[in-house]
Amino acid sequence: MLKLNGIFPPLPTAFDANENLAPSKMKLNIENLCKFDLSGFLILGSNGELVCLSEQEKVKVYETTREAIPSDKIMLAGTGGQSTRETIILTKAADKAGADAALVLNPFYYKGLMTKEALIYHYHAVADSSEIPVIIYNMPANSSLDMSQEIIAAIADHPNIIGLKDSGGNVTKMGDIKRMCKPDFQILAGSAGFLLPALSIGAVGGILALANIAPQHCLNIFHAFQEGDLEKARKIQLKVIPLNASITSKWGIPALKFVLDQIGMYGGPARKPVLPVNEEIKMQLGQMVKEFGLI
Amino acid sequence: MLKLNGIFPPLPTAFDANENLAPSKMKLNIENLCKFDLSGFLILGSNGELVCLSEQEKVKVYETTREAIPSDKIMLAGTGGQSTRETIILTKAADKAGADAALVLNPFYYKGLMTKEALIYHYHAVADSSEIPVIIYNMPANSSLDMSQEIIAAIADHPNIIGLKDSGGNVTKMGDIKRMCKPDFQILAGSAGFLLPALSIGAVGGILALANIAPQHCLNIFHAFQEGDLEKARKIQLKVIPLNASITSKWGIPALKFVLDQIGMYGGPARKPVLPVNEEIKMQLGQMVKEFGLI
Amino acid sequence: MLKLNGIFPPLPTAFDANENLAPSKMKLNIENLCKFDLSGFLILGSNGELVCLSEQEKVKVYETTREAIPSDKIMLAGTGGQSTRETIILTKAADKAGADAALVLNPFYYKGLMTKEALIYHYHAVADSSEIPVIIYNMPANSSLDMSQEIIAAIADHPNIIGLKDSGGNVTKMGDIKRMCKPDFQILAGSAGFLLPALSIGAVGGILALANIAPQHCLNIFHAFQEGDLEKARKIQLKVIPLNASITSKWGIPALKFVLDQIGMYGGPARKPVLPVNEEIKMQLGQMVKEFGLI
Amino acid sequence: MLKLNGIFPPLPTAFDANENLAPSKMKLNIENLCKFDLSGFLILGSNGELVCLSEQEKVKVYETTREAIPSDKIMLAGTGGQSTRETIILTKAADKAGADAALVLNPFYYKGLMTKEALIYHYHAVADSSEIPVIIYNMPANSSLDMSQEIIAAIADHPNIIGLKDSGGNVTKMGDIKRMCKPDFQILAGSAGFLLPALSIGAVGGILALANIAPQHCLNIFHAFQEGDLEKARKIQLKVIPLNASITSKWGIPALKFVLDQIGMYGGPARKPVLPVNEEIKMQLGQMVKEFGLI
Repeated sequence: MLKLNGIFPPLPTAFDANENLAPSKMKLNIENLCKFDLSGFLILGSNGELVCLSEQEKVKVYETTREAIPSDKIMLAGTGGQSTRETIILTKAADKAGADAALVLNPFYYKGLMTKEALIYHYHAVADSSEIPVIIYNMPANSSLDMSQEIIAAIADHPNIIGLKDSGGNVTKMGDIKRMCKPDFQILAGSAGFLLPALSIGAVGGILALANIAPQHCLNIFHAFQEGDLEKARKIQLKVIPLNASITSKWGIPALKFVLDQIGMYGGPARKPVLPVNEEIKMQLGQMVKEFGLI
Repeated sequence: MLKLNGIFPPLPTAFDANENLAPSKMKLNIENLCKFDLSGFLILGSNGELVCLSEQEKVKVYETTREAIPSDKIMLAGTGGQSTRETIILTKAADKAGADAALVLNPFYYKGLMTKEALIYHYHAVADSSEIPVIIYNMPANSSLDMSQEIIAAIADHPNIIGLKDSGGNVTKMGDIKRMCKPDFQILAGSAGFLLPALSIGAVGGILALANIAPQHCLNIFHAFQEGDLEKARKIQLKVIPLNASITSKWGIPALKFVLDQIGMYGGPARKPVLPVNEEIKMQLGQMVKEFGLI
Repeated sequence: MLKLNGIFPPLPTAFDANENLAPSKMKLNIENLCKFDLSGFLILGSNGELVCLSEQEKVKVYETTREAIPSDKIMLAGTGGQSTRETIILTKAADKAGADAALVLNPFYYKGLMTKEALIYHYHAVADSSEIPVIIYNMPANSSLDMSQEIIAAIADHPNIIGLKDSGGNVTKMGDIKRMCKPDFQILAGSAGFLLPALSIGAVGGILALANIAPQHCLNIFHAFQEGDLEKARKIQLKVIPLNASITSKWGIPALKFVLDQIGMYGGPARKPVLPVNEEIKMQLGQMVKEFGLI
Repeated sequence: MLKLNGIFPPLPTAFDANENLAPSKMKLNIENLCKFDLSGFLILGSNGELVCLSEQEKVKVYETTREAIPSDKIMLAGTGGQSTRETIILTKAADKAGADAALVLNPFYYKGLMTKEALIYHYHAVADSSEIPVIIYNMPANSSLDMSQEIIAAIADHPNIIGLKDSGGNVTKMGDIKRMCKPDFQILAGSAGFLLPALSIGAVGGILALANIAPQHCLNIFHAFQEGDLEKARKIQLKVIPLNASITSKWGIPALKFVLDQIGMYGGPARKPVLPVNEEIKMQLGQMVKEFGLI
């Protein structure tokens, strides 16, 4: 079974000044990040602006990033759409492009209709039709649909569904999922803000926006935890919370992309209507970049 | 300026048993509904499963429904996507296909980034680039992003933005929008559940799922209100609330499609993971169909 | 049966500079408001800071206001507490002081335990033990517990429960309640922001914070509606929305009390930690007072 | 400074069959729990039905429980009301009765008015007037007002405010509070569901409903964590999640009281409208009691 231990950055999708895809820039970012002991990459997660790309663009991104990701690094590909049909098509395309697993965000637009039964149908249909394993993606801050532990455990009861990325940060729920699911079901923290608490109740790693700009900090938390040095893990964990918040819950993708530009990687614009960060935020981000020694 | 007075059904998108588009079935439904004094149709709203169609499918639906919609009936086309880029492309395609106006749901996935500034940017960029007028679509139950009156009024301050479909049902907010916007800004109720209260504070009509199956009831409320017969309007309004709830907030699209099949129109399946209504719900719907004399 | 038609101001509770009860000031305010064609008064609603008074203080307020309220004006008394026991005690005290009916806010602290069964138990136990009729009070903005139409209709099925004050503003729900309840069940709008839409679907009046400072505006909406002059009713309705918002959802009780002080009635302080409005808000309120000719 | 390390049960308030206070039963429960290595007790928290007691009853409970709590065990007393005035009165009463610290739930009824400024005012006024130290209590599931880390940190900046009980379970926020506050500011987990993750980011202990019925399990998590045996801590943590949920988020106080009755302590009824658990829940609770060996 595919091992998901460790830290994965969810790679932002690169656009040029006209908001056209810039795959070569993503390759540069991947090369840069390959200097660190990361387990792999997530392509087209929420930070990858999945919902803002056409089907053709998504396939293009799967293909060009796989070329850049070394074969010893895991490639996870976001493939979730609002319909089962679209999700299956994208999952097959990701497989064909060489992804090692598909990360499937639940459909959420028709909230009232996303019953336990419908969600199980969806994930099992995708997992049945896919050669590569499927990872559940729960992202309530964006989807406004927080799947319960009961639903997640029922979905997880399928041989081709191997894990969960949980970005909600509810560690009681994560613990409950760990308890309810098969022993080798792998939980990944969806944000660096709660990496250590998630590890403490059994997560195997994280898919962390912060790992795009401060991969070593994330790895240090992970390794300190593994070595039983909780004091050290906690110290770094507390330290990274505000930087992590600034590129996620607080100012999001444009802040992440701005910092990437600052530290010699490629950030570029997000697709509109997401607007660039303003001057004041830039200054605050600039100061954090210095404090954290990211340049 | 395009007049939006009156009642518009938001047409469900028809799929065959394999979930492939079935445009001919939509034509039949349009013909059927043209027997009533409706002002026009909305194509690809939430009931039209907009978010479950590919770009090519959307264009196909715009084109084939326009062929079926008589030129004296208004065709509104849902064209909202998560990016400004996609929304502009779809709006141009709807225009080319012959739509009279575009109904634009706000982007909502990156909730934290959908500031007043970003939303104004989005709507004005779409309105600037479009030859057909734009109608704002606020649908918090699905998008989980309820645009405030301040934001809507700021967006509405553009010559090519002519109205609002509000499905939130907050009549205080509708009143405030009416007060804040240009005098000819046209508010449409987004659900038959609050048609009469919306008319009472200045809405000019409604885009109502219920108008697909009970168009005359909707028209009767509208006409009774216009004629000043509030007693009659209220009586019908109260009567339709539970039927309307059953095909919208309660059981949604599959219930609407089931009733369509029952009353001799085409319903067919929704795209998965939306599942068909179960037998018990079918029985309840069947009883309502009889009570309302829809067959 | 007690008729609740018309407009009721929910009287703020008066405190002196040390936050001690100032019943004589409430009497002055009542006298002032008796110049208008109001149906009566609500004592100790949310605007009356019910939750900030001790039991003894509540009884004192019931007694002293009843002395000031003429016998031809209805006195409604807020008596809802978190336990059935407390609510019964307060309802009896209100009755003894001469209140005509009790307005009972649902218990809400133990949200997860406030099942349909528990809420029916509560209201029926209170209604059974009370000589005066009971009015249900649904106030989700403060209680964060929005009782559904099914629950309200089940509660309303008791001979001593005669009406509902709904401050949620969901007019679809109000319509549904009107449809589901006994014909003489009386719905009162809980805010002037949606008075006209509520009347349009069958409300008999309103308990309106705005009626403390602009009673004639509220009465004009009500009378215009009753006379079938919807155009006039709508015009005033739209006009009052921002003033109403400023003393309710936006700046609340301290704004209401500030305006009372401005227009020659008694406002005084709210009990802390509710703080007085700041200078900027005072200026905005001052302008509205002038625009509306309240001085 | 008062050390809050360790585990505290929030004692339910005992009522007899007529819902009258039964202080002698609380004494028995305290004696029973004193066999375990608990740090102390919380009297009149949410589990103590604080909001359902009169002022006199609260004072009575402070006094009678202090008599039963040995002087080497810490007594924390819930004293939060909706007004600053009431909270100060109760805090003084708790002090007089011998409580070691006051746990102050934030006022929450007037949500819109509970600004940062108002909340700081409230807590600092209480802390200024109190001889015993104050602990902040954040309980969003009941209050529907989740105080942010910025607000909590600002409140915590007072010499007489020594800690926080956080029942929200947001560990990212807890980490951020740990980072922002004075080094000796003490965070207590508010539920056993996230005890270990909370400890991992710096909490010093917990006030845990579960500690009323399974004190040793709670203590085992705490001690295993302190000894660096994370594997053992995690194992117990995962195990207790469902039992903890059943007496808190799922079925609440009546379930906790039922289990107390089952295990030879005193549970008794909750004050109505909170209803007893039904037969099916009793059976499920009974099974858990056996599985956990609580008898």
